[in-house]
Amino acid sequence: MTNQKKLWGGRFSEATAASVEEFTESVQYDWRLFRHDIAGSRVHARMLCRQEIISGEELEHIIQGLNAIEEDIKNKKFEFKTEFEDIHMNIEKALIDRIGPAGAKLHTGRSRNDQICLDTRLYLRSESSRIKNLIREVNRTLVRLARSYQGAIMPGYTHLQKAQPVLLSHHLLAYYEMFKRDLARFNDCLKRINVLPLGAAALAGTGLPLDREYVAAELDFPEISKNSMDAVAGRDFAVEFLSNCTITQLHLSRLAEELVIWSSDEFGFVEISDSFCTGSSIMPQKKNPDIPELIRGKSGRVTGNLMSLITTMKGLPLTYNRDLQEDKEPLFDSADTISRELAITAEMLSNLKFNKKRLEQAAREGFMTATDLADYLVKKGMPFRDAHAVVGDIVSYCLKQGKKLKELTLDELQRYARVIDRDVFDILSEEGSINSRLSLGGTAEKQVKKALEQAEKELEEPL
Amino acid sequence: MTNQKKLWGGRFSEATAASVEEFTESVQYDWRLFRHDIAGSRVHARMLCRQEIISGEELEHIIQGLNAIEEDIKNKKFEFKTEFEDIHMNIEKALIDRIGPAGAKLHTGRSRNDQICLDTRLYLRSESSRIKNLIREVNRTLVRLARSYQGAIMPGYTHLQKAQPVLLSHHLLAYYEMFKRDLARFNDCLKRINVLPLGAAALAGTGLPLDREYVAAELDFPEISKNSMDAVAGRDFAVEFLSNCTITQLHLSRLAEELVIWSSDEFGFVEISDSFCTGSSIMPQKKNPDIPELIRGKSGRVTGNLMSLITTMKGLPLTYNRDLQEDKEPLFDSADTISRELAITAEMLSNLKFNKKRLEQAAREGFMTATDLADYLVKKGMPFRDAHAVVGDIVSYCLKQGKKLKELTLDELQRYARVIDRDVFDILSEEGSINSRLSLGGTAEKQVKKALEQAEKELEEPL
Amino acid sequence: MTNQKKLWGGRFSEATAASVEEFTESVQYDWRLFRHDIAGSRVHARMLCRQEIISGEELEHIIQGLNAIEEDIKNKKFEFKTEFEDIHMNIEKALIDRIGPAGAKLHTGRSRNDQICLDTRLYLRSESSRIKNLIREVNRTLVRLARSYQGAIMPGYTHLQKAQPVLLSHHLLAYYEMFKRDLARFNDCLKRINVLPLGAAALAGTGLPLDREYVAAELDFPEISKNSMDAVAGRDFAVEFLSNCTITQLHLSRLAEELVIWSSDEFGFVEISDSFCTGSSIMPQKKNPDIPELIRGKSGRVTGNLMSLITTMKGLPLTYNRDLQEDKEPLFDSADTISRELAITAEMLSNLKFNKKRLEQAAREGFMTATDLADYLVKKGMPFRDAHAVVGDIVSYCLKQGKKLKELTLDELQRYARVIDRDVFDILSEEGSINSRLSLGGTAEKQVKKALEQAEKELEEPL
Amino acid sequence: MTNQKKLWGGRFSEATAASVEEFTESVQYDWRLFRHDIAGSRVHARMLCRQEIISGEELEHIIQGLNAIEEDIKNKKFEFKTEFEDIHMNIEKALIDRIGPAGAKLHTGRSRNDQICLDTRLYLRSESSRIKNLIREVNRTLVRLARSYQGAIMPGYTHLQKAQPVLLSHHLLAYYEMFKRDLARFNDCLKRINVLPLGAAALAGTGLPLDREYVAAELDFPEISKNSMDAVAGRDFAVEFLSNCTITQLHLSRLAEELVIWSSDEFGFVEISDSFCTGSSIMPQKKNPDIPELIRGKSGRVTGNLMSLITTMKGLPLTYNRDLQEDKEPLFDSADTISRELAITAEMLSNLKFNKKRLEQAAREGFMTATDLADYLVKKGMPFRDAHAVVGDIVSYCLKQGKKLKELTLDELQRYARVIDRDVFDILSEEGSINSRLSLGGTAEKQVKKALEQAEKELEEPL
Repeated sequence: MTNQKKLWGGRFSEATAASVEEFTESVQYDWRLFRHDIAGSRVHARMLCRQEIISGEELEHIIQGLNAIEEDIKNKKFEFKTEFEDIHMNIEKALIDRIGPAGAKLHTGRSRNDQICLDTRLYLRSESSRIKNLIREVNRTLVRLARSYQGAIMPGYTHLQKAQPVLLSHHLLAYYEMFKRDLARFNDCLKRINVLPLGAAALAGTGLPLDREYVAAELDFPEISKNSMDAVAGRDFAVEFLSNCTITQLHLSRLAEELVIWSSDEFGFVEISDSFCTGSSIMPQKKNPDIPELIRGKSGRVTGNLMSLITTMKGLPLTYNRDLQEDKEPLFDSADTISRELAITAEMLSNLKFNKKRLEQAAREGFMTATDLADYLVKKGMPFRDAHAVVGDIVSYCLKQGKKLKELTLDELQRYARVIDRDVFDILSEEGSINSRLSLGGTAEKQVKKALEQAEKELEEPL
Repeated sequence: MTNQKKLWGGRFSEATAASVEEFTESVQYDWRLFRHDIAGSRVHARMLCRQEIISGEELEHIIQGLNAIEEDIKNKKFEFKTEFEDIHMNIEKALIDRIGPAGAKLHTGRSRNDQICLDTRLYLRSESSRIKNLIREVNRTLVRLARSYQGAIMPGYTHLQKAQPVLLSHHLLAYYEMFKRDLARFNDCLKRINVLPLGAAALAGTGLPLDREYVAAELDFPEISKNSMDAVAGRDFAVEFLSNCTITQLHLSRLAEELVIWSSDEFGFVEISDSFCTGSSIMPQKKNPDIPELIRGKSGRVTGNLMSLITTMKGLPLTYNRDLQEDKEPLFDSADTISRELAITAEMLSNLKFNKKRLEQAAREGFMTATDLADYLVKKGMPFRDAHAVVGDIVSYCLKQGKKLKELTLDELQRYARVIDRDVFDILSEEGSINSRLSLGGTAEKQVKKALEQAEKELEEPL
Repeated sequence: MTNQKKLWGGRFSEATAASVEEFTESVQYDWRLFRHDIAGSRVHARMLCRQEIISGEELEHIIQGLNAIEEDIKNKKFEFKTEFEDIHMNIEKALIDRIGPAGAKLHTGRSRNDQICLDTRLYLRSESSRIKNLIREVNRTLVRLARSYQGAIMPGYTHLQKAQPVLLSHHLLAYYEMFKRDLARFNDCLKRINVLPLGAAALAGTGLPLDREYVAAELDFPEISKNSMDAVAGRDFAVEFLSNCTITQLHLSRLAEELVIWSSDEFGFVEISDSFCTGSSIMPQKKNPDIPELIRGKSGRVTGNLMSLITTMKGLPLTYNRDLQEDKEPLFDSADTISRELAITAEMLSNLKFNKKRLEQAAREGFMTATDLADYLVKKGMPFRDAHAVVGDIVSYCLKQGKKLKELTLDELQRYARVIDRDVFDILSEEGSINSRLSLGGTAEKQVKKALEQAEKELEEPL
Repeated sequence: MTNQKKLWGGRFSEATAASVEEFTESVQYDWRLFRHDIAGSRVHARMLCRQEIISGEELEHIIQGLNAIEEDIKNKKFEFKTEFEDIHMNIEKALIDRIGPAGAKLHTGRSRNDQICLDTRLYLRSESSRIKNLIREVNRTLVRLARSYQGAIMPGYTHLQKAQPVLLSHHLLAYYEMFKRDLARFNDCLKRINVLPLGAAALAGTGLPLDREYVAAELDFPEISKNSMDAVAGRDFAVEFLSNCTITQLHLSRLAEELVIWSSDEFGFVEISDSFCTGSSIMPQKKNPDIPELIRGKSGRVTGNLMSLITTMKGLPLTYNRDLQEDKEPLFDSADTISRELAITAEMLSNLKFNKKRLEQAAREGFMTATDLADYLVKKGMPFRDAHAVVGDIVSYCLKQGKKLKELTLDELQRYARVIDRDVFDILSEEGSINSRLSLGGTAEKQVKKALEQAEKELEEPL
């Protein structure tokens, strides 16, 4: 094909090589921005009319043309052509073909440089909203789960070693807090996303009398970019979005890891319902926790996408460079991935069945009340560091004797510390241990109840 | 050595292998947290006393002991020992050695798990403040530079091809905007950093009657962690900090790339003063832009640090795992690197000398007013897309004739578009082009002046 | 749908949730492996027959069935169903549907765990071969270019500052060397790719009397995996492949960066033909080096893919985990990207036109023969370090006088070093400088000619 | 300080800013290369003498000077000064200070550009050798362990779900295979490391009559760089080295993950000896698997280092740019980290105690012989896919009845498949299952014994 067909082909004397068209086109993936592209064009056209750059009649044709194109795309009746490179040119060309001269006026005072930036911002705004809702949904499920297992005890772990008994609800609410912060991060990022770039044109602003405030208001942008060169060159809002996705992904991966471990025969803490597991092509007995495994595995792609855009941005001179075209796919993939993971996580959490008996049994093994014993000694006046040493010795004795802490006699205990009295046995129970953790944010039933109520209240608030 | 010396050695029957001590120790780098560790311990001790867990006398001994240790560390008189693993144990052991039993009470109701998290948060808060000030300083220098070169014109680039003439000040202020957003990101992250973890103890909270509100107030934390397990397990605030460093780094790398390119003989736009360049060991004539090159190169380490912590966090079950020890060095390195880069950037920018003549000359070459000509045609009623095509043809004609746009005669121009009139020559000048870009955020002198004033005002505001 | 339809559904009492099917399916992308999957199945079936596990008639049906399925897929007549998860199950199910009971025997002694590993290895082998050929093609083009510009001189750069004059051919051949090493890396990696995993079954090997040597020979694998657990769990060959892609990508990005810089008006060293550039939607005069920009930009995705798989693999226990499913897309994307980039690079290089005059002119500016002057002094007996200082002073003098080195009079030169004689002017010419660099691998015409011949010879050798 | 002191300061009229010296210096870390730098200088000097560029006497002085400096550095008597930037200039300056004019001749025909590349290659060669030996040591320990636990059975896992019984030795030997490939990769990389860059000088080669063959032979380089520009600009060998470290790290992280999981109370498969664990500052009973946790955590830094250098290299034009200085620290850190991890892994493995009883017990639970039952049916003539379905139904029945497979009566079994006979009970035992896996690389005792012997033989071979 020749460049005569290209909307920018004027100064070119040779046709674009077919391989070049194929290599440079982006419409294969950026077609997904069509809604945003058209939404932006509609407002742009209206503004051009208000500023008397185009006539009311021209505006009408443009709007109708754009609407028709949008319908066609939605109905898969629109043919995207790689020879028109990207979503912008595909739509503009179609508009001109449909409505003639008026269509050729749409791109007045605008460049693809500010246009793609607008589309990307509208897209990320909409994705942020979707993700925030899904995070909220996961949190809602976590709280519901925590509520329904109120009172269930389990071992709390550090280093995957039993550390201190905790409430299952407390453990679940730890994730609630993580996701709450994730949500706050997406909100903060929106401040950087919600800035109107349109009007920056190619890089220097435009000589035509555009009304950026009008466009910003119509497109619901609280802020307008203050420097046209920065407007078309910057993608930090996109890197920040990808970083936020990655942090959420890390939280999902931790939950996933726990579900995988808890689903093992050896732990046996939780059962994921049949409908959320899959089987083996060869081993007939297998029921695999594929969902959490895949979520954990997808940490790769989400991290990779972040790394991708960082690498692309490194060392680019101002302003727009074609490298920036590479920002789209990582954004699409991370937004899609995170959304899918959040949705399936919420669904899967609703389909979990914790084995309360196993959890409790596990909580009663080990020496998880050793810290309580040390705290007991502290309350009896022994410096903590000494108390720690004494209890260490007692544990060592238990290991040799094959006894649990609470199976020791008072006599045995007193051999290690005279101050120990009969009341020690109250604090050597798991329930006693848990309910003593009354510090703010602790695992005592009272604190967890408060946390649950607080969470339920927060979930009522608007996003 | 035997574990009897270890503060946690009670239950252990074998001494720690020397190779293990060496492999697991962190004091070689986390000693840097000593100020924060001691600051936290001081407040923790005061709270223990208020809660009558330790006596007033014990408190006094502890405070004096901690003060003395802090002085010794500052004066490099303190010997850190790898056998005590980390900064916490080194200080606690020294305290016990110095003040005896009272020292052994300091760790009451506290674990290294919440303690290290506190130290890290105090550290990041202080680093954030340092970085924010340095960003501000870079921005101050950019604005000063923009002010001092007011009116200087240069080519604006897209694709490293001359695109449209712009003001040098406009170009510089693009970076001002980027760094302003970076600063906002560090501010937002502080909301997640400024949360008190102390009181979470090992993972479950503590059974001792701590007063977390008091500690939070004394340490100036507006928020208190709401879930003890989350408190010791989470590092998302650290990943976010590293991500913010990376985004700032990307902006620095872009500025650096431009300075490298502009310093080349071929561009010759800027000279970095001798004191900010270095020479060659073999080529006597060389003067190299080492500073911007190194800044660009350091994109590697800052990105690497982000990837490092993300990789470490991936798939960790709750709560604390020893893997988390690996968060420190990336944080230290990125905070240090970014700070040093920002400081040297501010200094270097003050030592730049732009070659206004070269900039202007470059701005007058090429066909950078072609868009203005198209806009001119638009104003004469031609649809933009057609105008673009016509100007493309004219440029093509110029290329063949070896002429600039403004060297064409009216006659020549009219051959391409009848509507062109004598007034066309006004807009074919670079100054005309620039000053027509009156859209908000555009490069017109009037807009840039406004932007400068706005920036100067912003720089007066508190951080 | 119910699990009764699933080939592994026996033990499951609940149907797989639709959302789970959608979340876990991989056939949307791993369908690309169909040729490899079927090739492996064909050989597996033949082996089963040789081992008398299936009959000759059954084999015939299986082969015919597989062939028919392959034809259908090639002709886009095959409907992939996400309910059958992946390429393996889709094909196996179709086979059973078509040929009945014999089809149900194909998966004997095999698991998807070893099957997917086989498919991936066959895929990577074939991609490695494609990439190696394309690297070779790029190198062929570089050598052709170097040959056609023999004798053209240009500035050699360090720090993007003019350093010493070199031959353009020498510069081009630097890339030849890089790509040659890339090719060697792909070859080395093949040693790890070309290992037969089939026969490892799920993880433990199989109790059926398979003949792995036969399968290896038929599929042209020189090696057979020696440990069944390692065979299904390992993906290091895939990480290595991605790393090799990344290194090649880095080389491409450096070449791309140079082409972008050289295409700028300011350098003007090279023109990329119209057919390999694109224009601007707003600026009619623009001709942008999109191809090298996109190549540079794609460093992001290729690096991201490497990071992706590394993150996924981190900390996975043995053996197969569903996380491994995530290895496919990074592999596909990097292989595709690198191949497309190499192909377009070869094509674009053929469409470059260097501006010999500009290159020469640039080579004659600056003080690029300063090192030659220092070497001259060394030959006259001055220690190099002193010579360096003397020439530094002379350059400093030139800068003040606005003179080039060769414009100095003998008298002026002798003021700095008595030993300088009339013969100095021979070595102050760029040609003299270049041709003096006779050390092996140096830029002297004689050495470059030798290097060219050597390269041309190497390009004749088999890959 | 003034640049007059700088060895390259001739042309500079201003002193280097102190902040610039501090920002650009590398001697704080590259001093570690002193042995390699001096080794290279010794050979360079000898060559200069052979070529009659320096006299025999000068050579003697240089060698003595270098030896003395090396001794001083080893004995920590050498003061490195940041004002001399790097290891090269520090040594050269000290040499000149000590031996006078002869010292000033050492840098003849050499640039820091080729010198640093030489040092890095010598360093990586030596690190590769260290790492290879350590990998070998880990493998030796694995084989020893596998030998000492011969016959012990355990569950083999996929998806962390019990899959099929395997021998512990078989599981351990899976890692043996991984590390063997890692070793091969380090060997392959050495082909790219072992190339002499010296003689490339600044970038263009040198006009002095150097003898590169002699230098290569003396420094034991089988190959000489063929293009001087490539020689000083390339770092792909360093990226490859970092990639190899990362792949080894991934293998270490998988082993570490397994040890952490196996050390949990719930699995209880292995005990790491007290001397390889550490305790808790608060919980007296804790014994944590810190070593494997830290190893897993260090995946971050090793991956980060790889990403660091990749990011730094992206888009650098030829030839040397100061950015390349940033290659050192990632290399040092990854080489050190990997070496320390390998050493401690070997040591820790020797201090593992597997709980054979628990392993066996775990192997006897679940339905791990289900695949054997399916294979049994296949041998009785049932198509595998049908057999899989039948066994799935049997497992489902067992789950409902709370029975193990081998607890079913023949009658119960026959309800699902008439063909089942009394001999089925032979294959339903774990030992029967394991020993049936006779395929090459399978877990049958016979195969594992062969694999062990093979491994022991390989470990005798030279590296």
